Amino acid sequence: MAVKINENYLLLQNSYLFAEIARRVEKFQEENPDKDVIRMGIGDVTKPLSPTVIKAFKDAVDEMANGNTFKGYGPEQGYSFLAETIVKNDFNPLGIDLDLDEVFISDGAKCDTGNIQEIFDLNNIVAVTDPVYPVYVDTNVMAGRTGPINEEDRYEGLVYLPCVEENDFVPELPKTHTDLIYLCYPNNPTGTTLTKNQLAKFVKYAQDNHAIILFDAAYEKFITEEDVPHSIYEIEGAKEVAIEFRSFSKTAGFTGTRCAYTVVPKDLKAYDSDGKEQSVNALWNRRQTTKFNGVSYPVQKAAEATYSNEGKKEIEENIAYYMKNSQVIRDSLTKLGLNIYGGINSPYIWIKTPNNMDSWTFFDLLLNDANVVGTPGAGFGPSGEGYLRLTAFNTLENTKEAMDRISELSF
Amino acid sequence: MAVKINENYLLLQNSYLFAEIARRVEKFQEENPDKDVIRMGIGDVTKPLSPTVIKAFKDAVDEMANGNTFKGYGPEQGYSFLAETIVKNDFNPLGIDLDLDEVFISDGAKCDTGNIQEIFDLNNIVAVTDPVYPVYVDTNVMAGRTGPINEEDRYEGLVYLPCVEENDFVPELPKTHTDLIYLCYPNNPTGTTLTKNQLAKFVKYAQDNHAIILFDAAYEKFITEEDVPHSIYEIEGAKEVAIEFRSFSKTAGFTGTRCAYTVVPKDLKAYDSDGKEQSVNALWNRRQTTKFNGVSYPVQKAAEATYSNEGKKEIEENIAYYMKNSQVIRDSLTKLGLNIYGGINSPYIWIKTPNNMDSWTFFDLLLNDANVVGTPGAGFGPSGEGYLRLTAFNTLENTKEAMDRISELSF
Repeated sequence: MAVKINENYLLLQNSYLFAEIARRVEKFQEENPDKDVIRMGIGDVTKPLSPTVIKAFKDAVDEMANGNTFKGYGPEQGYSFLAETIVKNDFNPLGIDLDLDEVFISDGAKCDTGNIQEIFDLNNIVAVTDPVYPVYVDTNVMAGRTGPINEEDRYEGLVYLPCVEENDFVPELPKTHTDLIYLCYPNNPTGTTLTKNQLAKFVKYAQDNHAIILFDAAYEKFITEEDVPHSIYEIEGAKEVAIEFRSFSKTAGFTGTRCAYTVVPKDLKAYDSDGKEQSVNALWNRRQTTKFNGVSYPVQKAAEATYSNEGKKEIEENIAYYMKNSQVIRDSLTKLGLNIYGGINSPYIWIKTPNNMDSWTFFDLLLNDANVVGTPGAGFGPSGEGYLRLTAFNTLENTKEAMDRISELSF
Repeated sequence: MAVKINENYLLLQNSYLFAEIARRVEKFQEENPDKDVIRMGIGDVTKPLSPTVIKAFKDAVDEMANGNTFKGYGPEQGYSFLAETIVKNDFNPLGIDLDLDEVFISDGAKCDTGNIQEIFDLNNIVAVTDPVYPVYVDTNVMAGRTGPINEEDRYEGLVYLPCVEENDFVPELPKTHTDLIYLCYPNNPTGTTLTKNQLAKFVKYAQDNHAIILFDAAYEKFITEEDVPHSIYEIEGAKEVAIEFRSFSKTAGFTGTRCAYTVVPKDLKAYDSDGKEQSVNALWNRRQTTKFNGVSYPVQKAAEATYSNEGKKEIEENIAYYMKNSQVIRDSLTKLGLNIYGGINSPYIWIKTPNNMDSWTFFDLLLNDANVVGTPGAGFGPSGEGYLRLTAFNTLENTKEAMDRISELSF
């Protein structure tokens, strides 16, 4: 007898996608130290924290210096000053009301979307759009909700909803019963969106199937078009069937600062094996109070400042800056005759690879010949094969330079 | 068919211990708004962050304000500047060498000790000392490694190692095979320690049984006596059988700032069902890169500053302050004729309740009659019944006042 590992980890196919990209880029840079590589792969921001956020952040650090204002353990769910501001600014204007204990502040949407599956039974059937943010899939593999990966690069037991050119990147409803459905809109990686009507069909499906939608809205601040829902709770009845994840990472440049939140409505219900309703809000609260200790106090104060009038203005400027980059990418690649998607309500541009090249080949070509790092679509799932993702998060100068370099390539 | 919850959560007996305490205190304060309650229950610190830490924290926030020094996503495992400082200061002086990729920086030892069980098989047999930090038990219950709780307040399938007056709070080795053994020394909640020889017996047991020790050393900076190991890796061979958890929470006042770390040696091995050795370091790395996004950059810089010469001096002063409180508590309660333990190498004092009172009765008596909040021993497990924990983390003034009030009680 000996201590045994969780063997589900052995089902995972690759190292985490972004770690593999980092490895290839590092290798290229070691072999080509003189080359100036432009990173448009990982969705990391480049604009610094805005002045209003910095001021609030530092003021809060100063509070930590004084015994009278020092903050020790805070509520695991986050401070109510932040939850209140979130509800008032992110939801009330959409006509959505939330109680403060329906908002759980955390250190990242990656953590929350990764951890949320823990509170659900291992026998639930999980659906993901394909391509998809790998965290949704990998965390379910690690938990044991899938079988091994098959020859089509799909984990057995997982339901894939393809989003490809042929269906305008709009997933069909699952054809079989599913219990948990991960949706991310505006979408990572494709940058595409669902209209209210399209999203409402998923809410209806969830109601009919007693299923739950795990709705990742990390990119909602990038929406520019009407009729694209900012929150799933804009759809009637969604509070009974959906959890929503939001993040300060991309909107306010918090990728290195770490703050996010998750909405778990008290109306949301799941069931025990007797068919009895159970509060998902209570389960998530139990999970968070047992395994998490709250977000750093100064970080929560910094996040709060993103909602001040000045803070909002600064952040809108940053987002406008990134969306300008997005326009540059869209214009350049369109001129090259490439088929591209996204980039209008999202900082992500999804490129169909030229000449039916596979994703990693196109990735290597861009890295080696243009010294530009993208993210190979295949890394996001089998339906991402034949695509590559670029992000609009670099500087305008670098974005233009990258587009100039790519324009000189011949495909 | 409908979405099902993780029913293991229904096996959990109470709300998380500290939430229950908070509830009772809140109720008392509502009913007695004029009473000045002194909190010596939850292990939260009161001394503010030290000047050197504050300076580094603010300087790092300033870096986030400038595009040239701004930090986006950092390594999920933490920055190497911090890992390097940790190894140099916390381990090298003990004669222990670690590679930087054996150190995983995180936002809390609660998170790490809670999450670590995920990388191990659900059929492993888990041993805990009793009384014990509830997170070890609850997270294994939530994962499904136990049965329901029985009449003796013990979860079926869990191996309890009682630590009581009768055995000087030194746990016996498990009498049956176990795979994962949680040890916390200096101990929370009893404040007691193991000598090197006593700890070496557990290392030997783990070697003989191909088991792994999950060693929580969150309180090692409070050790004042010789022959008490600061790290389990002081014991020869421990790198092959132990993971160690450390935290900046209690030592540097980071309970509201959030930084900790976990050491997973590359020599540490667990097994798959074919009996093949698997790297636990690689598994934890996969877990962290998939479900975690690193600690806030300014927080990591603040943690680094705790190791500067000035930082160390300031922190030693804070610890000395708390240990003075501990002495005050020990002296007062001894004078009252109470049997007390701990408080010499630890900020926790473990009190045998007078007159065989049960823990919660003694808790309520202290709350109602002395307006002092402790932590009922029974909240830490069945062998904690008949004890109560006080912490030395309040101010000296409050600690003295609390002792005066308790001295006026008649038991």
